[in-house]
Amino acid sequence: MASYNVAPLEKLVEQFERMPGIGYKTAQRLAYYVLNMTKSDARAFSEAIIEAHEKIHYCKICCNLTDGELCPVCGSVKRDKSVICVVETPRDAMAMEATDEYKGTYHVLHGAISPLNDIGPDDLKIKELIARLSGEVNEVIMATNPTVEGDATAMYISRLLKPIGIKVTRLAYGIPVGGDLEYADQVTLARALEGRNEL
Amino acid sequence: MASYNVAPLEKLVEQFERMPGIGYKTAQRLAYYVLNMTKSDARAFSEAIIEAHEKIHYCKICCNLTDGELCPVCGSVKRDKSVICVVETPRDAMAMEATDEYKGTYHVLHGAISPLNDIGPDDLKIKELIARLSGEVNEVIMATNPTVEGDATAMYISRLLKPIGIKVTRLAYGIPVGGDLEYADQVTLARALEGRNEL
Repeated sequence: MASYNVAPLEKLVEQFERMPGIGYKTAQRLAYYVLNMTKSDARAFSEAIIEAHEKIHYCKICCNLTDGELCPVCGSVKRDKSVICVVETPRDAMAMEATDEYKGTYHVLHGAISPLNDIGPDDLKIKELIARLSGEVNEVIMATNPTVEGDATAMYISRLLKPIGIKVTRLAYGIPVGGDLEYADQVTLARALEGRNEL
Repeated sequence: MASYNVAPLEKLVEQFERMPGIGYKTAQRLAYYVLNMTKSDARAFSEAIIEAHEKIHYCKICCNLTDGELCPVCGSVKRDKSVICVVETPRDAMAMEATDEYKGTYHVLHGAISPLNDIGPDDLKIKELIARLSGEVNEVIMATNPTVEGDATAMYISRLLKPIGIKVTRLAYGIPVGGDLEYADQVTLARALEGRNEL
């Protein structure tokens, strides 16, 4: 195998291999794909990486990613600034946005409290959230993931906010729409039962 | 959704999405991974793309990828120049190399004859193969894929080479080692029977 290593190719394979969910075989396939790109496409790809890195930073209000001073949500006059939806990652905010139901603003924590991974409250954008809680805000929706870490983070933040007199809510747990009761896990089913609504 | 598009990020997601086997969700995950890289890592990644593109070209003998004048195999005095193993892609050559059994040289066609995809013999490195057939070469092993295209390519090349008096062989078809007869497809099993060897 060793005799076949072409150094610049191996370097590219290594770069891809570091990415989440990409193994050696996939990394190889991607590297070959890059080699087969036209020169201008490869340049565009290379520049897109640098550009994304240089232009994108956190919105100074909600800590979501943006290339402007404010993110499109915080900068919009149409959004309800009295509600803040707290999510773990920018992708979670994107998922909420895709529902087309939510008209408030976001706050991106960039993680969740996880003692096992040595991530404490100070590593998250919690101070930035507290700083936003002027008289205008009257509800904070905790939309962290339904995991141990997400729940712990939601609990931690709700304990901080309740004394200030702000309403803190949590996304509903329950069976997914289109799901199958038979395949729902026990915990989810128990939570769905607990959270049942009158018809 | 639209209000959340951060242009440089979307551009990067699009770049990843074009790659083989990468859908929108994975492309997003990769783009976020790139954003979370350190600045110097992002620069290294970006440069690896350009470098691979600029430094890697075809070996002038076997058409495999290399950053030198000759690939490591063609440039080695230890390899048997009298045997050429013809493969479709550089990755196939790498797979052969990984067996550690083959000591001859390679020839990379960069594809297979496929009328459906408008790929004819002239689109492959067949001329380059013919040009290599000096008196030194006495066997050409067709190691194209066991597919309709690979078989057609092997047949086509063997018909070109046999009149010149060169021995052309084909990799054996059969059941994979460690496989299960029960799950072998009919065609493979029929070929394995056909190619049976005395014990």
